Amino acid sequence: MGKKVTLIGLGLIASSIAHSLNELRSDIELFGYDISKEVRKTAKKLGIINVSDDIESVVKNSDLTIMCTPVGVIGSVVEQISPFLKNGSILSDVGSVKKSVVKSVLPKLPQGITFIPAHPLAGTERSGPNAGFSGLFKNRWCILTPQKDAPELKLKVVKDFWESLGARVTEMTPEHHDLVLAVTSHAPHLIAYTMVGVADDLANVTNSEVINFSAAGFRDFTRIAASDPTMWRDVFLNNKEAALEILGRFSEELFALNRAIRKGDGDFLYNYFNRTRSIRRSIVEAGQDTEQADFGR
Amino acid sequence: MGKKVTLIGLGLIASSIAHSLNELRSDIELFGYDISKEVRKTAKKLGIINVSDDIESVVKNSDLTIMCTPVGVIGSVVEQISPFLKNGSILSDVGSVKKSVVKSVLPKLPQGITFIPAHPLAGTERSGPNAGFSGLFKNRWCILTPQKDAPELKLKVVKDFWESLGARVTEMTPEHHDLVLAVTSHAPHLIAYTMVGVADDLANVTNSEVINFSAAGFRDFTRIAASDPTMWRDVFLNNKEAALEILGRFSEELFALNRAIRKGDGDFLYNYFNRTRSIRRSIVEAGQDTEQADFGR
Repeated sequence: MGKKVTLIGLGLIASSIAHSLNELRSDIELFGYDISKEVRKTAKKLGIINVSDDIESVVKNSDLTIMCTPVGVIGSVVEQISPFLKNGSILSDVGSVKKSVVKSVLPKLPQGITFIPAHPLAGTERSGPNAGFSGLFKNRWCILTPQKDAPELKLKVVKDFWESLGARVTEMTPEHHDLVLAVTSHAPHLIAYTMVGVADDLANVTNSEVINFSAAGFRDFTRIAASDPTMWRDVFLNNKEAALEILGRFSEELFALNRAIRKGDGDFLYNYFNRTRSIRRSIVEAGQDTEQADFGR
Repeated sequence: MGKKVTLIGLGLIASSIAHSLNELRSDIELFGYDISKEVRKTAKKLGIINVSDDIESVVKNSDLTIMCTPVGVIGSVVEQISPFLKNGSILSDVGSVKKSVVKSVLPKLPQGITFIPAHPLAGTERSGPNAGFSGLFKNRWCILTPQKDAPELKLKVVKDFWESLGARVTEMTPEHHDLVLAVTSHAPHLIAYTMVGVADDLANVTNSEVINFSAAGFRDFTRIAASDPTMWRDVFLNNKEAALEILGRFSEELFALNRAIRKGDGDFLYNYFNRTRSIRRSIVEAGQDTEQADFGR
């Protein structure tokens, strides 16, 4: 694969890539740029990546350029860097939505550059360059959503890149990606944000009560709802359709459970609560969570 | 305090009490009973509690009897044990709802027995005697909801008991307890169950996709939704009013966020996602969760 990799946007994901590459891949020269002077300074201090104050210089010799910015600015990043991208090189990203990213990148993509969209399903509730760590991608999935005519060789470069960081790689269409992620990520996040918002807003239960007694279930929602607000705003602005579809189904189910509670239908509630246990078991078996009990009620 | 403590119902909470007492309190003799022969057998094997096949014998000399059964059977447990309770002894429980427990226990309580309802806010998604461990209550809250005329001395016994297991103890009315827990526990659980139910039910996203890509947020919901179905059925049957109130507010907020997504109102979304971060910080500061990043998206 290409020896020069450039990361645009130096937040949690980029700095985790840098930490991982430093540990695992001595054959790669890594360059980085961020629009924020502050972030560039922090990243320089970390000493994990060659940071430049000039976007042109980091892009022009890059074999693989990965946009690690919020989804909402990817279109303008492509506009900015496209004059400098090296002929024959690969452009990629790490955005949490794929249909809108593909739609905003393709029309601006110069001849001779291949765009391979990617989404590593990894992250924490923290943001910024200091939040990154080696091992973030280990055993996590990275979903690629290439065009049908993407050259096999270029696809393999991106695939190998993520596998070398410990990720498992799979491919699907951008449309299907966005629907799957609406279920596994976008809807759960919105719901967690909503629940935390409700708790913040009650007159008859104080914030300090909510905080002290959060081990009863609420605290796991607050962890999810502490994620980067810019990133999540962009997710919902850019995956409107699929998110609204899943949230619509969620509301329907919630109504049914509400009704069962009001009617005192214990059998309905028991059966509902019982069937969800098996999904949990499968997730642990699939290695996507540990069996370790970690939750207070 | 009294030297003989009896636990009725030998699940996660009772076995965690037993493990903790064995480690921390050599002055207490601990007795236990469970309606299930199987569970009694398992608890005997664990060797952490004197298990009897006869409920009368464990209750009659007990200074403090704690009902650790699902909330739905507490009424019938009281009926069964009340003839044997020792004069001057204390009856308590660990139920997740308090108004309905008080309502079902008080009319059946014999003269000379003091009922001090308690709710330790601790647990995991596992159930049964094998799930218990010492340290479950450490740094967790235990809420007592005593009657106004409860004797100070009896109250102190229960307070000291939980504090000696590492818990912090506070008091409130049963009504307020049920509202606070509806926010911090009951609504989050119902919402998690709902989201997992939705994911299980989709035609265009396979279960294996949901499972593989669950690190993106969904998996934390499955942990919550793997809790004991009997316990949670009883919670919602017995805290109907407060749960429906909070779920109603939740639906209202969710509609507002839905609308912002459909209208593409980025400012509304950003502001909403931003304000929930501060609650997270407060929970970490209050020692109810660690700062450790522990969540994939």
